[in-house]
Formats: sequence, C-alpha cells, structure tokens
Amino acid sequence: MTQIGGAMRREMQDQPEALAAMAGRLPGLIAELRGAGVHRRAGLAILARGSSDNAARVAAYSAQVRSGMPVSLLSPSVYTSFGQTTERYGDWVVLAVSQSGQTPEIVDLAGRFREAGSLVVGVTNDENSALAQTASVHLALGVGPETAVPATKTVTAQMLAGTAVAAAASDAQLDPAAVASLGDHAAALLDDASALDPAVRAVTAAGKVAMVGRGFAAAAAFESALKLQETTGILAHGFSTADFRHGPVRLAVGGTPVVAFAGSTAPDADTTALVADVAAHAPALLVAPHGDVTFAATEPEFEAILATIRGQQLALAASLALGLDPDHPSGLSKVTMTE
Amino acid sequence: MTQIGGAMRREMQDQPEALAAMAGRLPGLIAELRGAGVHRRAGLAILARGSSDNAARVAAYSAQVRSGMPVSLLSPSVYTSFGQTTERYGDWVVLAVSQSGQTPEIVDLAGRFREAGSLVVGVTNDENSALAQTASVHLALGVGPETAVPATKTVTAQMLAGTAVAAAASDAQLDPAAVASLGDHAAALLDDASALDPAVRAVTAAGKVAMVGRGFAAAAAFESALKLQETTGILAHGFSTADFRHGPVRLAVGGTPVVAFAGSTAPDADTTALVADVAAHAPALLVAPHGDVTFAATEPEFEAILATIRGQQLALAASLALGLDPDHPSGLSKVTMTE
Repeated sequence: MTQIGGAMRREMQDQPEALAAMAGRLPGLIAELRGAGVHRRAGLAILARGSSDNAARVAAYSAQVRSGMPVSLLSPSVYTSFGQTTERYGDWVVLAVSQSGQTPEIVDLAGRFREAGSLVVGVTNDENSALAQTASVHLALGVGPETAVPATKTVTAQMLAGTAVAAAASDAQLDPAAVASLGDHAAALLDDASALDPAVRAVTAAGKVAMVGRGFAAAAAFESALKLQETTGILAHGFSTADFRHGPVRLAVGGTPVVAFAGSTAPDADTTALVADVAAHAPALLVAPHGDVTFAATEPEFEAILATIRGQQLALAASLALGLDPDHPSGLSKVTMTE
Repeated sequence: MTQIGGAMRREMQDQPEALAAMAGRLPGLIAELRGAGVHRRAGLAILARGSSDNAARVAAYSAQVRSGMPVSLLSPSVYTSFGQTTERYGDWVVLAVSQSGQTPEIVDLAGRFREAGSLVVGVTNDENSALAQTASVHLALGVGPETAVPATKTVTAQMLAGTAVAAAASDAQLDPAAVASLGDHAAALLDDASALDPAVRAVTAAGKVAMVGRGFAAAAAFESALKLQETTGILAHGFSTADFRHGPVRLAVGGTPVVAFAGSTAPDADTTALVADVAAHAPALLVAPHGDVTFAATEPEFEAILATIRGQQLALAASLALGLDPDHPSGLSKVTMTE
C-alpha cells in the first residue's frame, strides 16, 4: 500500500545514516580540498538554485566566519544574459551545487569558471553527472535516489559538503566528537516530531508564516520556508532576523505566526530575543537547542543541518494536516518551467 | 489639516526633483569615484540593512554586469559576533549605505574596513553623519528630511548613488539622454497611479502577494515587498524570478497573487514569461515598460528606480484602502528594536 507522503518521509528517515556516512568521509574530503588549495584562494563564489542555494548558504556563512574570506553569491544571469566574462574569479573557489548535476545553467557556468582558472568544487548526488565531470574536485553526496519533489536528504548532505569546503578554507578543525554524533542527533529528532504540533496548527490556521534565523541558522529559515511553500502552497517567508527587525516585524504585530530557528552562537541570541518580543502579538515558536522545539547543539554548521530537519518535519506535517500529498505538490507541473 | 499618509505621499512626490538633481551631479560623482580608484579595486562589498540593502542591490547587480567584478553582500554578524577581521577586503571597495548615517553596526564596521585598507564609499542623507565622516568617499543624497517611517525618496536616491559606483567601476558610460530624463519619467509615473488599482484590489483581498523580478528588476521586487509589509502588514515575499520557478511557483498555483517587475533587458523576458504562465492560476500584474502598469525604459538601473516608484504607489494605495496610516505603521514601536 502506498502511503501519502511516504517518499518524503522515507527520504527524511534516510538522513541519520546518510549524514553519519558522509561525516565519516569528512576528514578525507577536507584533506582532498586542502590538497587542491581551497585555502589559498582569494574568495568563495556560490553557484546554485533553490534548495541547493539554501544549502550552500551554510558554506557561505561558515567560510566567512572561519576564514574571513570574501564570499559572492553568483547571479547566473550576469553571464548567461549579459555575456559577462568569468575571468575576475580566476583565483577564487567556485562552489557549484546541484542535486542532479544536470541543471544546464549551472553545468555551463561551472565550465566557464573552470576555464578562467577558478577551482570549481562540484557537489552532486550523481558521480556520473555533467557537473561531476566538469568540476575540478567533485564531492559526491552518496545518499541514494531522491524521489519526492521536495528535496530533503540531499539538502542536509549538501550542507555537510559545504561545511567541508568552509573547513578546508580555514585552519580550524571540526570537533571529532560532534562529527561522530551527527547521525545520532538526526535520528533523535526524527523520533520526536510532536513538539512541532503547535506550529503546524498555527501555520495551517493562518495560512502564512514568517521564518527567521540569523547567522548559521538563516540557512535553516530560508530552506524551511521554501519546503513549506513547496509542500503546502502556504506563503512562508524566510528572513534574516536582523532584517526582520527593520520593518517586517510589522507582520508579527499584525498576527503573522513566527517560526524562529536559532542555534547556540552569538547571533542566535538576537533570534531568541525576537521570539520573546513578538510572542505578545502572534504565535511564535522557537526551534533551538533549548527552545520550544529542541535539537542538540554541536558545531554551528551541524546546528543548521539539524534545524533544517525540524523544518522538514514541519513542512511534512503541515502538508498532511491539509490533506495534501507532499511527494507530488499539486500544480507544479502545470506551469511550464522555462529557463 | 493633516492628511493620512500625507508625509509618505509628499516624500514620494519629491522624487522627480530629487532624482533630477542627483542625476545632474552624476558625472561629477563618477569622476570623483574613479579618481579614488574604484575601478582598480578587486571587488565590491555591500554593507547595508533593510531598504538601504535593497537599494544597494542595484549597485551590486550593475557592477557585476558592467565590470564583472566580484560582489559580496556582507553579513555584519561575521564581524560583530564572531570577531572576524576585515583584512581580506583590504583591496576592495566597501559600499556602506545608511539613510541616517548613524546605524551603529554600519558605522563601526565601515571604520574597521577602512582601517584594513578598503575604499569605503558611504552613502547617506546627512553630510555631518558619523558614516559620512568615516567614509573614504561620501555621496550625499541631498533629498531633504524624510519623516514617514517607510523610506521612499531616500531609497531611489540610494539606487542612483549605487549606479554611480557601478558606472565608476567600469569603462561604460551612462546614456546622457537617459540621465537627463530620469526626473521627468518619475514625474510621469507619479501622475498615473490608477493602473495599479487591480493590483491593490487583488493584494488587499488576498492579504498576501509574491513579488518577483530578475536581474536589475529584482531590487524593485524586494524593495516593493518590504514597503508593502511595512505599510500594511500584508505578507509580501520578494523572489528572484528564477528562484520562484524552483518551487515557490506552487504559491501562484494555489492562488497567491503575483506582482512582477520587469524592465527591458534579457533576464526580464523570463519574468514576463512567468506572468503569462501563472495568469491562469492567480491574479498576475506585470509592471514593465510595456506591461499592465508601464514605466519608460532608459538605462536598466533607471528601470529599477522607476519600477521601485511603482511599488511605492502600490504600498501607499493598499495601506489607504485598508484604512491604515502609512506614515506611522501601527505597532512597529511596540516591539523593542534590539541590536
């Protein structure tokens, strides 16, 4: 018997094993990236779309914090529409992230950056993909086929791959105990979804939600908003907590529910304070190591990964509560996906 | 007699004269920036929050298109929370944008970047502000006091200042005829607001909207969404058109209205096509040189400025239609604005 949402749920459940397996490969991946000279490059440029772009934000923020290197989020249209050249990135790392490794604009641009001298690190789930073959260094996710339309296990594995790139760019080491326990932490979360019930009720009742996070947790907020949009059609807006205070906080005053993601670093304190500030006005839920919905704190990049799993749980539960099929979001195929 | 929304409306009406005055100063500003060596720098880093950040996106995209230089959107928390050093930006331009020139984190960071060797271009509306005094080069907006909470004339002037920075970074010249006519184009828009009535009705009825744009027009989409959030509390989400197709298009299929901003460059064709694709599912309005709501096409940066004025008109009209006071958005001061 086929269960509604069965594919998304199964692929979410694959994450503890997939993350543990990739965590075991991390020291080797970091050594390979250092061997390729990631840490000697002038900056890190990100080439990705959609969930892959959200995942790459972990690498972007982590590289800035760990090494201070400039990070650029590339706009593909600069090259594909305006014919700009890639030469000014000749001494940069370009991190190209695509689950399939087949997205034409990503593959084409990765090749143009490599020709200009960029060190292109490709992250895909298919070792034989065009992007894998174009990249200077390929990091395989190795998480097995993903069949549900909403990407889950590939996203958290991409975040872990991005952590390897950021770690390779700096002299800092990842805590071996944190690396070893990542899979177990993910398994514990997946066994404990009921703490999200109040958020599921608030979000489905309001039909809208603001998702906020700052620093490492911003990636979880953006990705969770996208996941909820895809699975339910609910307008979920991801914000940096600091930007949310510059105007959009008006939304909470008007009753828009707030789901806030925070880990245990200094910027996360701003997010925790925001939840306290808005709670008098709107339903507000804190996904944090010691929040309404908890996850175990480890390295800050891993906090982003675990918080992202919480967002997946919320999207899956909200979709089922609304009687929708999260594996096949209605209507997506009805709109032509031009490039 | 005080008119509700009078300040926001008056400040919007100041734009033709303010933009024309600044346009007249553009050749001198560009020469000053080239004299300071903007075009010899390794990259352009953006330091801004809220509307100023949306305005700076014009400079960010324009610099990439015109010169191919790397652009980095700085995360202040990397420096303020994690204590990272600014030294790797020693050969960059840092564009610091703040209407008041007093935002503590912007002023403090601008100083730290300048100490590291960055060429800090400060853009403020107060020649005596802390940021004006900290910057290597200061570009004064000179648009007079802004009293309404939603920023309008300072935002479009910031976009024009950012255009000067991007132009200075490249060898391309701005079209003198386009520069000379910018104020007149803005005046024509402000005399013609009724084309937005269908959008005002759709957005206020739905209580939500997706605002999309790609390339130069993305800045107009992000800023218009923020303006609508601030004036009405309606959840307005700004998206890059390309990202919108990667999942969030599900929102339109579910009936979320779409307001799309497009100019006349190649990436804008993608936005125009999107509107046609979603029109069968949801109310969709095209703000474009030849769209449902029109504006005159000039340089692409100026298209972003004119489209942004259209977004201001929508926010003002929606606020008044809902019986709200856009000058003083309800509740914003009820929430503590911590830093």
